[in-house]
Amino acid sequence: MTPVFLRATADIEVAFHECDPMGVVWHGNYLRYFEAARNVLFRGVNYDFQDMKECGHVWPVVDCQLRFSYPARYGMKLVCSAELIEWENRVKVRYELRDPKGLRLCKGTTVQVAVDAASGEMLFVSPQSFRDRLLPHIKQGL
Amino acid sequence: MTPVFLRATADIEVAFHECDPMGVVWHGNYLRYFEAARNVLFRGVNYDFQDMKECGHVWPVVDCQLRFSYPARYGMKLVCSAELIEWENRVKVRYELRDPKGLRLCKGTTVQVAVDAASGEMLFVSPQSFRDRLLPHIKQGL
Amino acid sequence: MTPVFLRATADIEVAFHECDPMGVVWHGNYLRYFEAARNVLFRGVNYDFQDMKECGHVWPVVDCQLRFSYPARYGMKLVCSAELIEWENRVKVRYELRDPKGLRLCKGTTVQVAVDAASGEMLFVSPQSFRDRLLPHIKQGL
Amino acid sequence: MTPVFLRATADIEVAFHECDPMGVVWHGNYLRYFEAARNVLFRGVNYDFQDMKECGHVWPVVDCQLRFSYPARYGMKLVCSAELIEWENRVKVRYELRDPKGLRLCKGTTVQVAVDAASGEMLFVSPQSFRDRLLPHIKQGL
Repeated sequence: MTPVFLRATADIEVAFHECDPMGVVWHGNYLRYFEAARNVLFRGVNYDFQDMKECGHVWPVVDCQLRFSYPARYGMKLVCSAELIEWENRVKVRYELRDPKGLRLCKGTTVQVAVDAASGEMLFVSPQSFRDRLLPHIKQGL
Repeated sequence: MTPVFLRATADIEVAFHECDPMGVVWHGNYLRYFEAARNVLFRGVNYDFQDMKECGHVWPVVDCQLRFSYPARYGMKLVCSAELIEWENRVKVRYELRDPKGLRLCKGTTVQVAVDAASGEMLFVSPQSFRDRLLPHIKQGL
Repeated sequence: MTPVFLRATADIEVAFHECDPMGVVWHGNYLRYFEAARNVLFRGVNYDFQDMKECGHVWPVVDCQLRFSYPARYGMKLVCSAELIEWENRVKVRYELRDPKGLRLCKGTTVQVAVDAASGEMLFVSPQSFRDRLLPHIKQGL
Repeated sequence: MTPVFLRATADIEVAFHECDPMGVVWHGNYLRYFEAARNVLFRGVNYDFQDMKECGHVWPVVDCQLRFSYPARYGMKLVCSAELIEWENRVKVRYELRDPKGLRLCKGTTVQVAVDAASGEMLFVSPQSFRDRLLPHIKQGL
């Protein structure tokens, strides 16, 4: 079973401009919801985009996977969860988007790697500045 | 080796509004480029969004996968290829986004299933109207 | 002085994907915030997108104006107000986007006209179904 | 009559993801087409986003106006023109989006001001680096 080191959720309300001529959220826009939940997750350990930059790193997404079960439509109020499932060498986050009854509309994952902002070089282990912020928050017994 | 039944490409020029504060294309926006190439592919067999609707079907994306190797930046002129690799029960398309020197920036896949527009029900085999349009165009010897 | 018939606000949190390589919200994305506030306004009189459709009308935007004073950046928590300032022949809404200290970042207007969904014809007066929903809510003494 | 100092056009093909549940381009997305044409205009005088930055300036949009006459729909091939109509103290560009028969779907303007990238201060006259690039290209007899 995949360990979950940290978890956060974001409330989502589907916007009109996110929907396409089929009347449903355009598939690429679900990554906006994943991002909203991921940002709550990282803000929770004081490692938001601005913090990353101050520490000298950016964390581009290098892999995304999405699977859709039911369409989201304009006006729906949803909850997107983000769970940190890898952090030592790269950051992997798992997402679920659910409606108020708990029905899962979409799930997915993203993988990010740390890049040194000055040199542009990819790091093969997560930088110390990230570990220092993350470790006090992750679940005991790992 | 995966069979390729049909292939198309779209010329892409990276727009400023597609780029994020890291100065690169926001990861969800690569799905716009995949869509551009996929639409060329389907237009080539006269089965564009409008044709699907006239045939009584919509084809929502139910699965997306993206892997990023190098970032795309504002102003880059790229080529996105789309290859049809499944069509009998569902439509699976494989993509590659390359720069003018042939360097691959991103690759991925999407899976779509046919849905009856009137009933909202998913079809487990591709509808005859799609087969009739597709088969004359797909490569011999399959 | 322009009369204000109805007023609503939406809480906005600036998303990362809404920001451009200058590190600020891309100018076209402020219309997303205006839309969020406008939708709260119309939902308040039970005349949201779905209601309009059931009444046989759509309300395309035919004119937008935006003026920017200060840039919005990723993570900012803002409030967007929407004020109905015309409704008899067309709908005109006025917007202001403010930060928590009340500083106005952006203001603007949109104009919408009613279109008969079946015929595609523009209406030169607001339809009765809209008036019936709106009038009980608008401020006295008009 | 407004003088036109410079003119450029961009070919636009309406993307599926730019259209909303009314089946037409979402109103805020027309600013993407304006931007495409404006970028051709500025690239023509070697003053694209990257050049601006190298000269130490950014040029945020401080005012947008759009007026819509006919809706653009998925798949339409359009032409967007951009005309430079002010440049001395601020940059004002006028746009028209037309279909292949010349029917105007949308028109508008944007105003940009130069900002010193280092200090963040707005300039009240266009910087010399911009004038040096622009002047050789603008129409005679001004």
